[in-house]
Amino acid sequence: MHELGVVHRNIERADRTAADGLAAFGSATVHEAMGRVGLLKPYKRPIYPGAQVSGTAVTVLLHPGDNWMMHVVAEQIREGDIVVAAITADCTDGYFGDLLATSFRARGARALVIDAGVRDVKTLEQMQFPVWSKAISSKGTIKATLGSVNVAVVCAGMIVNPGDVIVADDDGVVCVPKALAPGTLAAAAAREALEGEKRAKLAAGVLGLDMYNMREPLARAGLKYVD
Amino acid sequence: MHELGVVHRNIERADRTAADGLAAFGSATVHEAMGRVGLLKPYKRPIYPGAQVSGTAVTVLLHPGDNWMMHVVAEQIREGDIVVAAITADCTDGYFGDLLATSFRARGARALVIDAGVRDVKTLEQMQFPVWSKAISSKGTIKATLGSVNVAVVCAGMIVNPGDVIVADDDGVVCVPKALAPGTLAAAAAREALEGEKRAKLAAGVLGLDMYNMREPLARAGLKYVD
Amino acid sequence: MHELGVVHRNIERADRTAADGLAAFGSATVHEAMGRVGLLKPYKRPIYPGAQVSGTAVTVLLHPGDNWMMHVVAEQIREGDIVVAAITADCTDGYFGDLLATSFRARGARALVIDAGVRDVKTLEQMQFPVWSKAISSKGTIKATLGSVNVAVVCAGMIVNPGDVIVADDDGVVCVPKALAPGTLAAAAAREALEGEKRAKLAAGVLGLDMYNMREPLARAGLKYVD
Amino acid sequence: MHELGVVHRNIERADRTAADGLAAFGSATVHEAMGRVGLLKPYKRPIYPGAQVSGTAVTVLLHPGDNWMMHVVAEQIREGDIVVAAITADCTDGYFGDLLATSFRARGARALVIDAGVRDVKTLEQMQFPVWSKAISSKGTIKATLGSVNVAVVCAGMIVNPGDVIVADDDGVVCVPKALAPGTLAAAAAREALEGEKRAKLAAGVLGLDMYNMREPLARAGLKYVD
Amino acid sequence: MHELGVVHRNIERADRTAADGLAAFGSATVHEAMGRVGLLKPYKRPIYPGAQVSGTAVTVLLHPGDNWMMHVVAEQIREGDIVVAAITADCTDGYFGDLLATSFRARGARALVIDAGVRDVKTLEQMQFPVWSKAISSKGTIKATLGSVNVAVVCAGMIVNPGDVIVADDDGVVCVPKALAPGTLAAAAAREALEGEKRAKLAAGVLGLDMYNMREPLARAGLKYVD
Amino acid sequence: MHELGVVHRNIERADRTAADGLAAFGSATVHEAMGRVGLLKPYKRPIYPGAQVSGTAVTVLLHPGDNWMMHVVAEQIREGDIVVAAITADCTDGYFGDLLATSFRARGARALVIDAGVRDVKTLEQMQFPVWSKAISSKGTIKATLGSVNVAVVCAGMIVNPGDVIVADDDGVVCVPKALAPGTLAAAAAREALEGEKRAKLAAGVLGLDMYNMREPLARAGLKYVD
Repeated sequence: MHELGVVHRNIERADRTAADGLAAFGSATVHEAMGRVGLLKPYKRPIYPGAQVSGTAVTVLLHPGDNWMMHVVAEQIREGDIVVAAITADCTDGYFGDLLATSFRARGARALVIDAGVRDVKTLEQMQFPVWSKAISSKGTIKATLGSVNVAVVCAGMIVNPGDVIVADDDGVVCVPKALAPGTLAAAAAREALEGEKRAKLAAGVLGLDMYNMREPLARAGLKYVD
Repeated sequence: MHELGVVHRNIERADRTAADGLAAFGSATVHEAMGRVGLLKPYKRPIYPGAQVSGTAVTVLLHPGDNWMMHVVAEQIREGDIVVAAITADCTDGYFGDLLATSFRARGARALVIDAGVRDVKTLEQMQFPVWSKAISSKGTIKATLGSVNVAVVCAGMIVNPGDVIVADDDGVVCVPKALAPGTLAAAAAREALEGEKRAKLAAGVLGLDMYNMREPLARAGLKYVD
Repeated sequence: MHELGVVHRNIERADRTAADGLAAFGSATVHEAMGRVGLLKPYKRPIYPGAQVSGTAVTVLLHPGDNWMMHVVAEQIREGDIVVAAITADCTDGYFGDLLATSFRARGARALVIDAGVRDVKTLEQMQFPVWSKAISSKGTIKATLGSVNVAVVCAGMIVNPGDVIVADDDGVVCVPKALAPGTLAAAAAREALEGEKRAKLAAGVLGLDMYNMREPLARAGLKYVD
Repeated sequence: MHELGVVHRNIERADRTAADGLAAFGSATVHEAMGRVGLLKPYKRPIYPGAQVSGTAVTVLLHPGDNWMMHVVAEQIREGDIVVAAITADCTDGYFGDLLATSFRARGARALVIDAGVRDVKTLEQMQFPVWSKAISSKGTIKATLGSVNVAVVCAGMIVNPGDVIVADDDGVVCVPKALAPGTLAAAAAREALEGEKRAKLAAGVLGLDMYNMREPLARAGLKYVD
Repeated sequence: MHELGVVHRNIERADRTAADGLAAFGSATVHEAMGRVGLLKPYKRPIYPGAQVSGTAVTVLLHPGDNWMMHVVAEQIREGDIVVAAITADCTDGYFGDLLATSFRARGARALVIDAGVRDVKTLEQMQFPVWSKAISSKGTIKATLGSVNVAVVCAGMIVNPGDVIVADDDGVVCVPKALAPGTLAAAAAREALEGEKRAKLAAGVLGLDMYNMREPLARAGLKYVD
Repeated sequence: MHELGVVHRNIERADRTAADGLAAFGSATVHEAMGRVGLLKPYKRPIYPGAQVSGTAVTVLLHPGDNWMMHVVAEQIREGDIVVAAITADCTDGYFGDLLATSFRARGARALVIDAGVRDVKTLEQMQFPVWSKAISSKGTIKATLGSVNVAVVCAGMIVNPGDVIVADDDGVVCVPKALAPGTLAAAAAREALEGEKRAKLAAGVLGLDMYNMREPLARAGLKYVD
């Protein structure tokens, strides 16, 4: 359940090295490194291609059509944070534009992940302030009802706790619980270390069937070849 | 209800200065300047990023899978118009491609807004003929049934009357009724004049909470801070 | 019905000249040249703009969340093929990334058309390995259940038989049955030959109404002009 | 565009005989009698099966998540009206339940057609107060912002003017413009008079191919029979 | 690809005993008996609850908004058939109502499965003529373009060949290829024979964990119990 | 993030009186009594109309297409529980049918709330075992991968913790956190006590405008009446 009308000022943020370091691996590798969990639903898309970030989550819970709490969350942003915005019901309105992006950036935010719409996307790309949203919409919002800041939220189907690490790129958005961040960083690095060698083999024409020793289990599962 | 089989040749177009001048403000500012109405649903997206236009609407009503009336509306286009195409039922077929774009441009059209699909999008981008559509599809259409030109239509959930002003950019598409166009131009200009100063303050780290005097109303609404 | 657990090694591929030559015409012209059939549903989109390809289909049928057969199909790829991947139920998981693309390319594949998600899209664009998919998702897959290779599949609503020609570009994806490929190539060429002249006329302001002699049939259908 | 903050008290309602008589023919026949226009999009569904009504539209325009104007429109209802509720943006909240239904019925309303959600559907069925909605949802709404009553609205893609006739049943919802209501009643009656005889023939095994003389036009269009 | 303008009069129908006998087992059991393939996508729903049928498929391919071929397929129906209607592009129009149902029934049809909309659903339920569709819509169709009868079609994502067996109930619709029908009947019967005993055990409180001997494989897979 | 491979055997269940008593008020009243939070998204629908239940949540997290953990959760059910099933990615497969319902009921379960599909719905209705699901599908599942039991899950966009109270009826599904259950029961009762009197007034023709004293605030907000 969502707690309304409360701003938690002191949150425990994930280990800084992990929070900063996970960006380099990207969402797909991090998702694998966590055991294939933590991914927000794939309708969450970047508003422009090419951005790849990680940071610590500050969360905000808003109501449909009302972005009042965006100004409240701005004050809670610290250097290296990513704002994660959830809405209490489905909404595609444009909660966020270039003015708020200017404010968020000035406070130290690296990105916004929002389960609604945003606007001024051309300017946001010029500013290189990345956003992952479910819609782009000119539709403005009012400032009338209280939500909360730094409570656990559900964003695109995933629980995000304040201080968790968010990793986002063109493939999607992953949430790494703060306690797991250092381990995930190590696992992602280990995983990526193996990829270079594999890529070289595959580029040389070696088949995954052979490289991963799949022929025997496939045959055991009953795969038949027909000429 | 939709009137079928009729072409209205003489329509009253919105004030030219307003119709031309609104482009500079973009759909989000214009939508706000109108009191947050007039927006087409956000599934309406540009086929390529970066275009920003405004112009007077000539409207066309078509049937699913039938683009015959596209040729009829071409004749009614005047310099500075934007064609707004509505369909009598949901359809994603490709009603429009580079040949029609060539024709529309030759007649003076600035853009197309269509509640269906288009094709030849690579060529359309090369031509820089902007289109806002709900789909991209190779699927061709037939030429068999009558619709109408320059009647009131519903496009992406919004009533558009012939002669209204259309403002479209990466954030979406807004329809400004012709009678409101001059006032909306003034309101948009006034609105934008305030934004530069706000942006500078926010960039300097001033919070919206303070700039907009929100702390007192938030407290009154019951917002609690927890450490 | 789908045949499971079988790999057909010897398939008849469409005529090479047709399979290679259709790319130049693009999906919209090819779809028209076939009598407006063969199009995959328009939710199938390129992961980056600008690619335009044709080739012979090798097909693979997979289960939701399981990409094991991707490694099996890799071995069946020959120079000039396009892999067409169908799933036995709706799924948006990321079945394919840069490692598999490296392998597919090494085997001669030109592209992937998949009725699910892919990942590593930034790298895929850098490699210029085009993919038409229904989603982009970091979500990884397991390798546990058998599907089939080179059976008839349904991809985005269209039957694709192994060896058919696939034509794909920014407008969509068309499947040309292998027996119809040479005829479709001829028809597409004929169709395109007519377009240059039409474009010139339209650019000069000639109306489609006149160029296509539509005024009389429109009047006969009952179209009325009102001043 | 939508006019906000206005209640039109005196509206011209469609001819009473037509408004009452169209119910008997149902939405499909009325839609055909109008020349196949006027239909609201088919996502609009009855909350329980079996109701079949017609009446004069009183319209209300509301904001997402805000049902304040439902109480305003209640006062404008007269005997034989159907309330048509449109929302300025997509919303599935439950705007209406058994209390409002009690009030609407007491004022003379026959039904509600709403482009959002409703709740208390079990009680509404017990009361036999029919509703056509796009969702069923427990989610409540606030009472904070002004909309309008008895302005032209777009509901499920169709323009509805106050006083138009609404015809709704298990097949959907049709809007008949008030000026066309008497003619549509006559056309629907004529149409239905022909159906009894057709039904008897078809039940006896006569084919539509013969009854409608389709064999010749089908052959002319090129239909081929293969044994 | 779809073949247009052809009616195949002589099709091989599946074994009658199997085609008739599969109804009793229902779509879920038949789908399992086939190895979990053959299911049409679950958006295909019955227009009223409770019908459970099986029969041999006669197929018809139609264009969006055009039901002309419905009259052509009527002539090809024989006692015990189920009509399977596919559309060349997405469409929700009401292709079928009580008149066509009267005709289909008079020809021997048991049901309709259609990848579009139908209307007159209240009357269809009174007639007890079952339909599985993707929409209910009053919207009528025209009779202008040729499709085909008794060609392979794709309906709700599944290939259906003329003569295949269709099994449909409240859980969905399955297609059993004609060659597999007798074997599937036997497999379904064997499957169901085991269910009575299982149900009795489960009703007595025996856990599936024990009845299916799952505890050991779950432990081996790593499942941990925490108190 | 989701914890995988763990079964929590000892969970704290909400107060029994509250858990049992909330059913009588229904999801809409309970949602209001909680301050309009706690609602699962409205795509979650009952498989048959009329059921109204409440109980304590036991939760299960499953993978797409895999219902193995359904047997694991069965053992953890106690009298008065409602099983809440979440899936790690979107899926409409039929995870649950009459055999599992027999088992769940034998263990004491009152209902199932699942963010996927179910089957055997006709039998489930005959058994009067209510289910709220997002789909109905014959599609079976495998038993291959571990999920968890009695961990926090996200179901239809809402966080559900083991032991929370679930209230479900035709209007939707609400989750009441266990700590809030007694207070919510009291608030719901208080709310309902007021409704009888209101209903009587409204039925007598009193307007909400007057009963709720809305005329003055509406005027203050600027509402204008036009004759």
